[in-house]
Amino acid sequence: MSAPATISLAAKLAGFADHWNPRVVAGYNGNEVRLAKIAGEFTWHSHAETDELFLVLKGAMRIEFRDGVAELGEGDMLVVPKGVEHRPVADGECQILLMDREGEPNTGGQPSHMTRAVLERA
Amino acid sequence: MSAPATISLAAKLAGFADHWNPRVVAGYNGNEVRLAKIAGEFTWHSHAETDELFLVLKGAMRIEFRDGVAELGEGDMLVVPKGVEHRPVADGECQILLMDREGEPNTGGQPSHMTRAVLERA
Repeated sequence: MSAPATISLAAKLAGFADHWNPRVVAGYNGNEVRLAKIAGEFTWHSHAETDELFLVLKGAMRIEFRDGVAELGEGDMLVVPKGVEHRPVADGECQILLMDREGEPNTGGQPSHMTRAVLERA
Repeated sequence: MSAPATISLAAKLAGFADHWNPRVVAGYNGNEVRLAKIAGEFTWHSHAETDELFLVLKGAMRIEFRDGVAELGEGDMLVVPKGVEHRPVADGECQILLMDREGEPNTGGQPSHMTRAVLERA
């Protein structure tokens, strides 16, 4: 094999502008590293079979839970355990890195008009 | 359960100063999210059972492979596939986020004076 390639998150983020449409940028142990631009309110959902990792790269967001809310600014991360209902919200545009198990839809087990079941690669 | 906690990577990184001694900051699908400060040359090694994810948070580093080298600056990531020999090197201090399967020693299958088999939590 040849040496693995360096992935510039900024370059990948510069390649798309739409919101709530995560792009896959790498694979890791059967999981996908995804990048997304988000703004506004997502839908309530949970992922039965996968934890979900959020890392804020630019801007700020919050993740609402049925029993609380977590605020995330740049350089903050949070792992939503599998099965836990949550709703991501960003008042302005926010750029995030996500991890989910390979093939997991962005809305988990609660399909909605915001579902992206087959993700593009950036 | 209560809402998962936000993890400030900067606050975690401010809590330690030593090099090549990764701290665990979160779990994700049987993997560990780790933070490390690195400087100088690590040892050649590979991880038979896990991919290894690198994301540079501050500074710059390179990852040497037997057949090439990858340069990483701030906001760059790279996934070393399982089984691939590599050696991380940083000319100055560099702060990185890593992911490995739970319990994986930092030197994989090649123990050395730099091995950290049981990692602290930050």
